[in-house]
Amino acid sequence: MSTVSAWHAQLGEVGDLLDLRSVFADIATDLADVERYLGQLLDEGPQAVRDTASHLFKAGGKRLRPALVLFGAKFGQYRYADVRDVAAAAELIHMATLVHDDIIDRAEVRRGQPTVHALWGEQAAVLTGDYLFAKAFSLLSTVPVGSVVGVMADVVHRMCAGEIAQNVAAHQTSLPDEQQYLDRIAAKTAVFIAQSCRAGAMACRAEPAVQQALYDYGYAMGMGFQIVDDLLDLTAEPKTLGKAIGSDLRAHVITLPVIHGLHSSQQRSELQSIAEREEVSGDAVRTVREILERAGSFSYAEELAKNFVNKAKTSLEMLRDMPARASLLAMADFVLERQL
Amino acid sequence: MSTVSAWHAQLGEVGDLLDLRSVFADIATDLADVERYLGQLLDEGPQAVRDTASHLFKAGGKRLRPALVLFGAKFGQYRYADVRDVAAAAELIHMATLVHDDIIDRAEVRRGQPTVHALWGEQAAVLTGDYLFAKAFSLLSTVPVGSVVGVMADVVHRMCAGEIAQNVAAHQTSLPDEQQYLDRIAAKTAVFIAQSCRAGAMACRAEPAVQQALYDYGYAMGMGFQIVDDLLDLTAEPKTLGKAIGSDLRAHVITLPVIHGLHSSQQRSELQSIAEREEVSGDAVRTVREILERAGSFSYAEELAKNFVNKAKTSLEMLRDMPARASLLAMADFVLERQL
Repeated sequence: MSTVSAWHAQLGEVGDLLDLRSVFADIATDLADVERYLGQLLDEGPQAVRDTASHLFKAGGKRLRPALVLFGAKFGQYRYADVRDVAAAAELIHMATLVHDDIIDRAEVRRGQPTVHALWGEQAAVLTGDYLFAKAFSLLSTVPVGSVVGVMADVVHRMCAGEIAQNVAAHQTSLPDEQQYLDRIAAKTAVFIAQSCRAGAMACRAEPAVQQALYDYGYAMGMGFQIVDDLLDLTAEPKTLGKAIGSDLRAHVITLPVIHGLHSSQQRSELQSIAEREEVSGDAVRTVREILERAGSFSYAEELAKNFVNKAKTSLEMLRDMPARASLLAMADFVLERQL
Repeated sequence: MSTVSAWHAQLGEVGDLLDLRSVFADIATDLADVERYLGQLLDEGPQAVRDTASHLFKAGGKRLRPALVLFGAKFGQYRYADVRDVAAAAELIHMATLVHDDIIDRAEVRRGQPTVHALWGEQAAVLTGDYLFAKAFSLLSTVPVGSVVGVMADVVHRMCAGEIAQNVAAHQTSLPDEQQYLDRIAAKTAVFIAQSCRAGAMACRAEPAVQQALYDYGYAMGMGFQIVDDLLDLTAEPKTLGKAIGSDLRAHVITLPVIHGLHSSQQRSELQSIAEREEVSGDAVRTVREILERAGSFSYAEELAKNFVNKAKTSLEMLRDMPARASLLAMADFVLERQL
């Protein structure tokens, strides 16, 4: 199934298919070409990378970052040829971080599929990630607007710093507060989304103020996106999630609902004792879910996500009214509808 | 001890200190500044990276790649400001690959020091490597000559492909032949050395033919360097090596002397049976050493290294006769004297 039809199939579940299809009409052909191009790039690699990377690639994904690169480019002097490598590089970097994250989180399953390191081992996963990073920077080095490389290098740089902070926090005795959580998800997710929007605009020589507005949109949208993602890790059905719930808790990653509960729940000591356990069982996860539900922690997190999404939509106001802007507005709403 | 004095101390062991010091006189001040700059860059990182990367950084190393970047630059319109970030990026990429290699090789010790993953775990090592890669590409993105990024991305790209090939070979039933070995060390080492020389020249806008000559020099020198390095893994004293000998054999990495022995030794079946063992003991390594000594495999490898070094020196002939050229000539000889 092509990316675009995967989008449509998924989006078709929740709304008027015709309306939603129109959201992506503007970039559908080019996004399909990015998908084809990515497949071709991965086919050029050495055999071992072809296996590991294709596995990851075929597991799918929404290609959110390439889509945002293309939408960002629409606000400049759009030429697909100027932005294709940026869009592909964004997805390669995303894939690289997924492979390395799975080592770090010791995750066995992603998107319902066994992870690269579960199938091929840690060594293959380290190298596959490095290979994908290098491939991404090779592509970016050919982009005539030089600053695009720096923007994407900054993404990786910030993500690593964020992951390292998370790693350190997971081994600390004190639990993180809300600000630490927000800093972490900014580094982990929001900066990447923001820079994807900006890099597309930059490659097509959009005005600096336009680039900034797109960055602001992506940043706020990314914050909302990650909060919802963390929320789903505790509230979703395992079937929808493609893995057991509570994986963050089990990996000692304390997310927003838990932080809220630790401050507001009457059962905060019980919550804390579970959060600090070496091993967190499925039963413990269900207990945490009940405690947080009662404390209103899920509603709190949802409200914060909504604020970020609104901020994202406000950032779009200064941009030209064109189909790409309508699409970005709609994508911000999809975050809350848990469709992104 | 500063890099330059570390060089000198080491070089002082084998020859006339005054002569050898003059080899590096041309870049000594700037190389010392690269060292200071690297320390400063690593200090800017998040706490966890400061610990892991400083550990690696302080373990020392010859800063061969930054030195070659600076020497390469001498053949263009040398300005230290134009080449500083390239020199630093080359060392950061080298450090990143060392951290990731140590995970892949499950190495516990490097340069007589415990490795990052031995001290802080695999997760920290994955992230530290990624962080260093990203930092390197951040620096490179500010270099005004855009093609330098591509050259260094190509290095990482080729190295990963080479490591993956090595990884696959280590799990294959058939032992590699000489050509496969040469392809592997080219990807692992020679391309990096070659591109370091070229990237410096490129950043200082040397002529394309000059860049090519420097690339050719670095490639041949790097091939010689890696052959000698692999030779030392079997022939050196553990004390000089900073680790037990035969680590390649134990990691199922088949190097040139072993390949030679497998074709030429009368004890090739004994050699093959050791090379194919799951676990290779210290006694087995000593047996391999004796077999290879008798078969002339070490002399054969040394001869091949010498050929590469001669080729490296020949590549320098078309370059301007200046102190940097004399230094590169001397460095090629140091490869054979096992001082690089």
